[in-house]
Amino acid sequence: MNFQDKLSHSIQKNQSYLCVGLDPDLSRMPQGITPTPVGVREFLFQIVKATTPFAVVYKPNLAFFLAMGLEGLRLLGELVDYCQERHPVILDAKFGDIGNTARKYAEFAFQILKADALTVNPYLGSDSLSPFLEDPKGYTFILGITSNPGAADLQKQILANQKVLFTHVGQLLESKFPSENWGWVAGATQVDEIRALRSVSQNRWLLIPGVGEQKGDLAAALNATRDATGKICGIINVSRSVLYASSGKDFAERAAGVCCQLVEKMRRVEAPDGR
Amino acid sequence: MNFQDKLSHSIQKNQSYLCVGLDPDLSRMPQGITPTPVGVREFLFQIVKATTPFAVVYKPNLAFFLAMGLEGLRLLGELVDYCQERHPVILDAKFGDIGNTARKYAEFAFQILKADALTVNPYLGSDSLSPFLEDPKGYTFILGITSNPGAADLQKQILANQKVLFTHVGQLLESKFPSENWGWVAGATQVDEIRALRSVSQNRWLLIPGVGEQKGDLAAALNATRDATGKICGIINVSRSVLYASSGKDFAERAAGVCCQLVEKMRRVEAPDGR
Repeated sequence: MNFQDKLSHSIQKNQSYLCVGLDPDLSRMPQGITPTPVGVREFLFQIVKATTPFAVVYKPNLAFFLAMGLEGLRLLGELVDYCQERHPVILDAKFGDIGNTARKYAEFAFQILKADALTVNPYLGSDSLSPFLEDPKGYTFILGITSNPGAADLQKQILANQKVLFTHVGQLLESKFPSENWGWVAGATQVDEIRALRSVSQNRWLLIPGVGEQKGDLAAALNATRDATGKICGIINVSRSVLYASSGKDFAERAAGVCCQLVEKMRRVEAPDGR
Repeated sequence: MNFQDKLSHSIQKNQSYLCVGLDPDLSRMPQGITPTPVGVREFLFQIVKATTPFAVVYKPNLAFFLAMGLEGLRLLGELVDYCQERHPVILDAKFGDIGNTARKYAEFAFQILKADALTVNPYLGSDSLSPFLEDPKGYTFILGITSNPGAADLQKQILANQKVLFTHVGQLLESKFPSENWGWVAGATQVDEIRALRSVSQNRWLLIPGVGEQKGDLAAALNATRDATGKICGIINVSRSVLYASSGKDFAERAAGVCCQLVEKMRRVEAPDGR
């Protein structure tokens, strides 16, 4: 099964659009977990196990594993396998480099780690994206509009032809890459911009970070992902507010509780008439 | 010593501006080298040893090490140490993510690997760069204009205010980050654009890839890096044409030969009157 099929299967099974981001910070480990790679392994495996009934996809963040050195990369490999027994996995790495280097990043993500999907940065242009999109096994989320204030510095700049840069990028990549194996990353703090990307790409998956600690509006963001038929076609990522829901020994239980509440909200968006 | 001091020391010692890029591709290992991480280690250590009299900095490319898995990351750590006995090291990774993630990438590069410098992608805006630039120990090369055709897709777009995007980025970052611990990556295939960046940032180091297999003009590129006083303030990266100078057992010797010729060309640029 490819990423889209696995994702659709998980969405149907769990009635959810929740992506759990796995950004393990040694300095935030809860009570009973040692701040070491061994402790982080225990922590993340418990989080994944507890959130399996609510999540539809997991998104480990490469930076947090590299910052733990060799043991971190070893753990990342084990974690991808563990998550995949439950749901598909997006490697969040925001790769962006020229062709022969991009090919090596694709090899790392899709062949070494065996992730189902990854994230990339389009700033080097379409030829830097080809090696990812040409891989028939993998799915690629391209940065559309990010959730941080700095999105205004480049992504929201107005071009001489009056287009906003990120919609120019959207139209360009739509015309160059008609294949179905890619979608967009779009920050929940930017609902108008999610709608703009949706009108450029009417049926692609949108990966939406920025709910949670960054305070994006879940309902507005999820509604903005609806495709041409009105179906929700987005996944909402939450990382820190799930992982660090409690600093006590009940961290896994509390993480599941936060996920349960998020999924409840998602179901209300899906059935606004109160079904 | 910080990166700039180490670099200046190497430049003075070797009378060169050569950065040797370390992009080890298992499928291109020469005769006598097994296509395994152990073989790559032997290959790269021989390359570094043979090119020490010509290079002033080494630039390992993260992608090629990650594509070898755990053994690749272990080798990268050993390689950084080995290079640093000779010259400073730039980790080429083109990181770009929001603040708390960027901080982890900085930790990986500067604390785990102990690289002297790294490369970053500015597409997420100034707040995504702060964690790198705030690290007093590290030096950061920000993507200015890249050497590939895709540079036209985003970086060279004309804004409504008539600025080209990459010069807008240049001016923005100059105004936000007055510190001396960062410079630009600018492709050798884009000499006019190197000049444009130089006029925005009159005294910052420019890291110039794209000579070699990408056919950029070494002399034109190096001349375009001259600072306000007329002094060359750039380093020219060459990767594949050094690493794979020969597919025979003489690969290290031939790599040194290619470097020697490149350095000769650089010296002629420095002293055009034939001193």
